[in-house]
Amino acid sequence: MMIEVALFGAGRIGKIHAGNLALQPGVRLKYVVDVHEPAARELAARYGASVSSSEAALTDPAIGAVVIAASTDTHADLILQAASRRKAIFCEKPVDLDLARARRCAAAVKEAGVPCLIGFQRRYDPTFAAVKARIEAGEIGTPEMLVVTSRDPGAPPLDYIRKSGGIFKDMLIHDFDICRWILDDEAVSVHASASVLTDPAIGSAGDADTTAVTIRTAKGRLCQINTSRRAAYGYDQRFEVLGSLGMLQAGNHRPTEVVYSGTKAVSQDLPEAFFLERYRAAYAVEMAHFFSAIQAGSALRTTIEDGVAALVLADAATRSWQEGVPVSL
Amino acid sequence: MMIEVALFGAGRIGKIHAGNLALQPGVRLKYVVDVHEPAARELAARYGASVSSSEAALTDPAIGAVVIAASTDTHADLILQAASRRKAIFCEKPVDLDLARARRCAAAVKEAGVPCLIGFQRRYDPTFAAVKARIEAGEIGTPEMLVVTSRDPGAPPLDYIRKSGGIFKDMLIHDFDICRWILDDEAVSVHASASVLTDPAIGSAGDADTTAVTIRTAKGRLCQINTSRRAAYGYDQRFEVLGSLGMLQAGNHRPTEVVYSGTKAVSQDLPEAFFLERYRAAYAVEMAHFFSAIQAGSALRTTIEDGVAALVLADAATRSWQEGVPVSL
Amino acid sequence: MMIEVALFGAGRIGKIHAGNLALQPGVRLKYVVDVHEPAARELAARYGASVSSSEAALTDPAIGAVVIAASTDTHADLILQAASRRKAIFCEKPVDLDLARARRCAAAVKEAGVPCLIGFQRRYDPTFAAVKARIEAGEIGTPEMLVVTSRDPGAPPLDYIRKSGGIFKDMLIHDFDICRWILDDEAVSVHASASVLTDPAIGSAGDADTTAVTIRTAKGRLCQINTSRRAAYGYDQRFEVLGSLGMLQAGNHRPTEVVYSGTKAVSQDLPEAFFLERYRAAYAVEMAHFFSAIQAGSALRTTIEDGVAALVLADAATRSWQEGVPVSL
Amino acid sequence: MMIEVALFGAGRIGKIHAGNLALQPGVRLKYVVDVHEPAARELAARYGASVSSSEAALTDPAIGAVVIAASTDTHADLILQAASRRKAIFCEKPVDLDLARARRCAAAVKEAGVPCLIGFQRRYDPTFAAVKARIEAGEIGTPEMLVVTSRDPGAPPLDYIRKSGGIFKDMLIHDFDICRWILDDEAVSVHASASVLTDPAIGSAGDADTTAVTIRTAKGRLCQINTSRRAAYGYDQRFEVLGSLGMLQAGNHRPTEVVYSGTKAVSQDLPEAFFLERYRAAYAVEMAHFFSAIQAGSALRTTIEDGVAALVLADAATRSWQEGVPVSL
Repeated sequence: MMIEVALFGAGRIGKIHAGNLALQPGVRLKYVVDVHEPAARELAARYGASVSSSEAALTDPAIGAVVIAASTDTHADLILQAASRRKAIFCEKPVDLDLARARRCAAAVKEAGVPCLIGFQRRYDPTFAAVKARIEAGEIGTPEMLVVTSRDPGAPPLDYIRKSGGIFKDMLIHDFDICRWILDDEAVSVHASASVLTDPAIGSAGDADTTAVTIRTAKGRLCQINTSRRAAYGYDQRFEVLGSLGMLQAGNHRPTEVVYSGTKAVSQDLPEAFFLERYRAAYAVEMAHFFSAIQAGSALRTTIEDGVAALVLADAATRSWQEGVPVSL
Repeated sequence: MMIEVALFGAGRIGKIHAGNLALQPGVRLKYVVDVHEPAARELAARYGASVSSSEAALTDPAIGAVVIAASTDTHADLILQAASRRKAIFCEKPVDLDLARARRCAAAVKEAGVPCLIGFQRRYDPTFAAVKARIEAGEIGTPEMLVVTSRDPGAPPLDYIRKSGGIFKDMLIHDFDICRWILDDEAVSVHASASVLTDPAIGSAGDADTTAVTIRTAKGRLCQINTSRRAAYGYDQRFEVLGSLGMLQAGNHRPTEVVYSGTKAVSQDLPEAFFLERYRAAYAVEMAHFFSAIQAGSALRTTIEDGVAALVLADAATRSWQEGVPVSL
Repeated sequence: MMIEVALFGAGRIGKIHAGNLALQPGVRLKYVVDVHEPAARELAARYGASVSSSEAALTDPAIGAVVIAASTDTHADLILQAASRRKAIFCEKPVDLDLARARRCAAAVKEAGVPCLIGFQRRYDPTFAAVKARIEAGEIGTPEMLVVTSRDPGAPPLDYIRKSGGIFKDMLIHDFDICRWILDDEAVSVHASASVLTDPAIGSAGDADTTAVTIRTAKGRLCQINTSRRAAYGYDQRFEVLGSLGMLQAGNHRPTEVVYSGTKAVSQDLPEAFFLERYRAAYAVEMAHFFSAIQAGSALRTTIEDGVAALVLADAATRSWQEGVPVSL
Repeated sequence: MMIEVALFGAGRIGKIHAGNLALQPGVRLKYVVDVHEPAARELAARYGASVSSSEAALTDPAIGAVVIAASTDTHADLILQAASRRKAIFCEKPVDLDLARARRCAAAVKEAGVPCLIGFQRRYDPTFAAVKARIEAGEIGTPEMLVVTSRDPGAPPLDYIRKSGGIFKDMLIHDFDICRWILDDEAVSVHASASVLTDPAIGSAGDADTTAVTIRTAKGRLCQINTSRRAAYGYDQRFEVLGSLGMLQAGNHRPTEVVYSGTKAVSQDLPEAFFLERYRAAYAVEMAHFFSAIQAGSALRTTIEDGVAALVLADAATRSWQEGVPVSL
């Protein structure tokens, strides 16, 4: 049976999801919803869908699933409404910037019994997923330590930063999810340190641009996360896991495998420019996973509970930074 | 204006071309032609096309372009017919195993004045194309030497080998094209040595499985090509160009960027398994190039003249191997 | 003028220093002192030196310099005696496990006005020193973040651990020195987390085997250090510095540059086995630096003040770990 | 019993051998012989040796071994004289530029029954030797193909080139030795192509600066060698062996393991500058091997027969280049 889908958000990430949606067998994009109508119209036209209001899309009983790629402040409402109408839900991270609201969403999803995937796309990245699979295959024995390096090529505009919930909720939320997923254990304490080193305006906005977080899990495993809003060499997305029998590292991807030997150095490409390039494959795998899971009735790899748990860590890290003490969970 | 396309061949490579075709704006797959009808039917259904006979497809005036991905022995006829009907032509390599016939095709294409792309897909690979672009940008000054390593993960079936025209026409034809393209100069002599080292049955079929070729160009540039029908570690596709100011190397691509440190070694993925994986991006770029070039009326990167020129080198190499002497061109 | 030297300690590291000493022009090993006389005798014989008592060596006015490579508990006394006799001092790290005693040594050295190099050999490693030089040359602009990975191939015997002063003083003291040296700034706070994950006996001995430390400097720069007493793949000694204009990484060294492509993976050598192999060049450069500096009267790269400062960090980290809070300095 | 040694040649390579000699137990440098006396004097002084005439050194019955590091034209005479006096011989490559003379030396050595090591130092390089050992351990099954890349950072002076015997004897002689050693088989034919691409003056001197050689062995194994007198990025010394079960590659060595990520590229060090740096370890291992072999009476890794065999290949390659045909052996 064909699954008909309403897509909320026709921006950068909405377009990517629409393209990946089109590749899924048994799935059809029916509606595109966006406050910016020209964007909705263009995207709808490209995939033979219609522009719709949010209300109309959610109340159409033919719609079996929603893909939420609109701005963060719409996520919770859309999740609640979609859940109450028993639609399967694919929602970009975060669930919400407010933990209490996120928890209400999770409760509503649970009560409705609908599948709800939160878009931690990194878990679907071929490199990251291979590390996870190889840990599970026992290649490094028991995981002991995780080191995550996560740096953006440049900071977003200040307007965005002011509404972002702060660097821990906006940027590190992905890294907190990686920590829980890779170490396969829950945090018992978080210590965060942070600085403003790239742009004083970020500090004036009450945020930081450089962070160093340590998480300790129930089993005593340790995770260190280092992030920056600015890496001059591009988008740096690496992690490494030390286990009792060895180490697995997830390295950056490059656009090409060219090696240049000049008179000064031997050089290779910078990493893929930013998340749209770096996680292109991840977004495709994620969408395929979502629909094949709801078609098969099988479990999702990234649930709304994962979304809540990452937010708990982000809140704790923010508090640790602000108060200068480790926070127990 | 929409370009309607007839695809000849619904096998492995035909499917890839159909998928890439579907992504081109202003292009529609109208017919799929294959002697094996179920394959044609399935592929046609997937993209809203019809199954057709070769005759019907070629005589439909609505067809603006043909994509020839059927077996090698059909290429020349299809090129000749398509040219005589003024269709734009995309044809898998080789033009033909027989040089005289290939030359007749080139003449017919020239006379008809139709665009004809020969599928040397490697020129469209992001890594290989970046090397070419960087040479043209002057990064290594004047090219002096090219070393090409080209190894398959395993030999094709003997039946295939017997009809393949031999390793130089079947396998090295790509490498000969790389040589002409990268050194940007024509060969004046070819020396080929070859052995049967992986399977005596290949020798019994009159072919070799391991080759070492040296090409000298008009400007005195040197190219060495080494190939094997079997690399235990997979599909090995590398080359390097030494120039007066440095070197550019095109390395293998890997499925993931995982690094594993165990108790014996630090290891990474094997190269992409075979050409369908390794050149996935190249096939997509190639198809986009074909249609954007014919839409814009601009030049093709790989022409039927390139197809003929590579065949000349393959013939010369075969003769050099058989007679044990360098062959002048 | 020839500098005559007394070497204290004829063990593993003493032998290395003796070998490097022999290469210095204008320097002669006169005495070897070791409580284990056969070791002293053998080493002395190898380099044409005599076995001596500590007393005799220190009171011989011909001795211009001492090299202290005996057990940690002898360092402070030997430094104090050597300083009082105006000998130049080369002393293995740490100055002492007790901060107050270390400070007394530093004061004595200062008062005596003698050169005193503390053996943080990593600062002399070609790779590490190149990173430092390139930071100073401005290649990464202003340093912002340092990530240090420091893992041993296996834990030392429990007897050693019990007398070691704990993992922060014994193992991380090198990493604390790297932090101060590379970030070129002083710590204002230290947060340390630690676990016992490799061997419960280490926990029973009151120590940890796995640590995660965050240091914040006066300029707001952040440093994360992760260490383990056991890396199944060998001795892992890496760090990376993010700056406003880029990143510099110091990678592991390998015994050979062999790459093996088998049927499962592409692999390279494990890192150099342990510190004697990894820092062989560093020890040689360090000794050459010591003697050329005292011959030229120029500054030492690693002073007793550096030894004290690293110890301050180790003490703070130990307290942070034990009390579960960040420690301000 | 102490072996006393006479060293012929106090130049660049003589100094390296003297330094390595000094590290061998049971070995003493007694004489240094050089037509340039100040050089001989300085080197002799450094190691407690005396300056001597060639005659005196060779006729002193206390001399057990000679190390010949003087200019190529002296090698044959010194070998013949040393052999006639039953001295063990360590001689830099080549034996002689003239094959007949080289064969006479080999015959004399054989008749005298003295050990004679020819300085193909690459066989002692840790990376190259590890490849050889791993082939012998069966890691790649049966070797099938060898690709050697051998490029100098820049051409020697024209005066040197004129007396060098040509690029095949002067530069590729090492690569011919690698071919015989790694493929463990004798050549049956050689094809060489060569060009003058870096400096027309080299052509005027009757030599070439860029070569491409193919060697076929008795077992049908293939070897391709590519060389250039000039690689803008430094000294490039690599080879790779394809076998039935995999591939082993010997890569370049770098001065440091620093990785720099700037705004344009991710870069590493250029290769070690030239042979003195690249093969520093090889020279040390070679000298240790020589003396431990003559002390133990065991076989040498590189014999005068190897020296003759490499010269045979160099002669054949030169002829192949000049006559434009493959040469059978």
